Amino acid sequence: MLTEFGLIDRFFARPAAGHASQPGAASARTVLGIGDDCALLAPAPGMQWAISTDMLVSGRHFFADVDPAALGHKALAVNLSDLAAMGARARAFTLALALPEADGAWLDGFSRGLFALADRYGCELIGGDTTGGPLNICITVFGEIEPGQALTRAAARAGDDIWISGRLGDARLALGAARGEWTVAPADLPGLRQALERPEPRLDLGRALRGIAHAALDLSDGLAGDLRHILRRSNCHAQVDVDALPRSATLARQSLEVQRACTIAGGDDYELCFTAPPATRMRLAALANTLALPLTRVGTIEPTEPARSTEPGADIAATAPTTPSALIRWVNASGQPLPDAVQTSFHGFDHFNAS
Amino acid sequence: MLTEFGLIDRFFARPAAGHASQPGAASARTVLGIGDDCALLAPAPGMQWAISTDMLVSGRHFFADVDPAALGHKALAVNLSDLAAMGARARAFTLALALPEADGAWLDGFSRGLFALADRYGCELIGGDTTGGPLNICITVFGEIEPGQALTRAAARAGDDIWISGRLGDARLALGAARGEWTVAPADLPGLRQALERPEPRLDLGRALRGIAHAALDLSDGLAGDLRHILRRSNCHAQVDVDALPRSATLARQSLEVQRACTIAGGDDYELCFTAPPATRMRLAALANTLALPLTRVGTIEPTEPARSTEPGADIAATAPTTPSALIRWVNASGQPLPDAVQTSFHGFDHFNAS
Repeated sequence: MLTEFGLIDRFFARPAAGHASQPGAASARTVLGIGDDCALLAPAPGMQWAISTDMLVSGRHFFADVDPAALGHKALAVNLSDLAAMGARARAFTLALALPEADGAWLDGFSRGLFALADRYGCELIGGDTTGGPLNICITVFGEIEPGQALTRAAARAGDDIWISGRLGDARLALGAARGEWTVAPADLPGLRQALERPEPRLDLGRALRGIAHAALDLSDGLAGDLRHILRRSNCHAQVDVDALPRSATLARQSLEVQRACTIAGGDDYELCFTAPPATRMRLAALANTLALPLTRVGTIEPTEPARSTEPGADIAATAPTTPSALIRWVNASGQPLPDAVQTSFHGFDHFNAS
Repeated sequence: MLTEFGLIDRFFARPAAGHASQPGAASARTVLGIGDDCALLAPAPGMQWAISTDMLVSGRHFFADVDPAALGHKALAVNLSDLAAMGARARAFTLALALPEADGAWLDGFSRGLFALADRYGCELIGGDTTGGPLNICITVFGEIEPGQALTRAAARAGDDIWISGRLGDARLALGAARGEWTVAPADLPGLRQALERPEPRLDLGRALRGIAHAALDLSDGLAGDLRHILRRSNCHAQVDVDALPRSATLARQSLEVQRACTIAGGDDYELCFTAPPATRMRLAALANTLALPLTRVGTIEPTEPARSTEPGADIAATAPTTPSALIRWVNASGQPLPDAVQTSFHGFDHFNAS
């Protein structure tokens, strides 16, 4: 059996880069990497630091028998997704790992998946901890952002468009297929599994949105729950067109009920949801082209006291929200609010309430 | 049952300080605290960042029924101890928590113990994650250190004294008493339990050692294992006087065998072990007085090819080390090396080899 230090040396210790990963850019420098009591970083002058931490638990965030390379990718991806949502550039991360046993083959796969993603974004592993215990992965990421440029949750303004990157719901559909909730054509399974196991952090999009978007966050718990964070912090309401939510051809072959459940309350999407003024629509269309990443306008930010809409049918919803505390009015492509029972069924994934 | 956001709001969300905790000192500023995708920190100009992460697992690093306030203290203390060992000033931390259930009373105690220690050192909680799962606590700490001032493991030099802060072995004795390995007088149990459950991070000592000490680390896995990290990184050997190792009156009442096991290979001490040139002895004695913290000289750093000692008896050890790879020569108060079998029995605690 490998010792703790054997583990670290064999799978995780790599020489500190000690230089900027993007030549020419002012960036943090690793002064001291893995192997001391602390790592030492020299921040780039004038930059702020974006920091986030996420813990993944076996049986809750992933299946115990998941491909370890996919798990290594995803454990870092969900953290990088938080940096993307701030508009930050990824710089470094720490990894703490509880393992039931020191399994060399598993660790080899895990570390390969982890570093393949880390290297793509110049994000360096600077420290960590390994211990025995029920499988648990905790990563903390560090990114750089120019002062005043961060895309916070509190910056949405009435009149903003609401945008979604990529497509929603495939990860939830994959989970439902694995659980036997829904039937999926065998040919569609690999694509769905990719969506569930290999989410791509939208770091390039996040960087490009600085100066364009107002508020942003990444969708980890489902649009219905996550969008509420923006609305609460920005003291706004929203109207969202459920028929406009971007979805894959695979998901579009499911019933409308499944499509809505997956796109609205699915979770594990790791796409960005952001708000931006209508004047930026052309720039965002061009950006979608440049990044080869769909950007879809799905709704509107409204003031806390909803203004009476001039669209036919919408005034009913404006004067009679489904519940007093409803922050989101879900409408269909015709602008008709969905029935109350459907509205209230869209709740975000909650780790302590989920079955 | 509390939701994840209910948990965070109720027990962990506090207003961001947004200012230096030590007026007058140039220090990091929290631009954005808990509640967004990332926290945002503005590093103080010209300072480096020390970063460390530690994961604590129920049943391995603590008993499942431990007082939650003590656990909150210890989870942060073991991380702050890493900052202390670098000479860094504590600034901020993130907390990721897997909980089998959302138990309000437990969280209340845990958060009180955590914040009581955090507030004493001006260390702000800036972000976190909570999830269901087997009890697991992962903290990442951020400290500030002046460039070139960090006390690394690689800086020991031949001729340095080896120093230990506080006293060693009480945490291990407490564990042994709880397991029934050894008998301890009932009157001594509260003090031992304090040592095990409430280690004090030596942050003030670490700061004061800048410019005095060469190498330093914190003792988490036992002196025998931890000192080796300094020796390997510094390419040195060491001679340590086992009779000089500082111990409490309680531990001194145990058999010599138990005393040695606890002081040398005990673990969970969270004292600092550091090396410093003999010319600093007077300054260190004065520092011990100022901090009201014992600092004990326990040995010497030797070059990789051990110089022939002029002390009677020591030359045997110098010419015939116990094993070719032995980095530490353990001697008694008379300078006599301990028997081979005793030497090889002193190994550090290893999380994957420990029973």
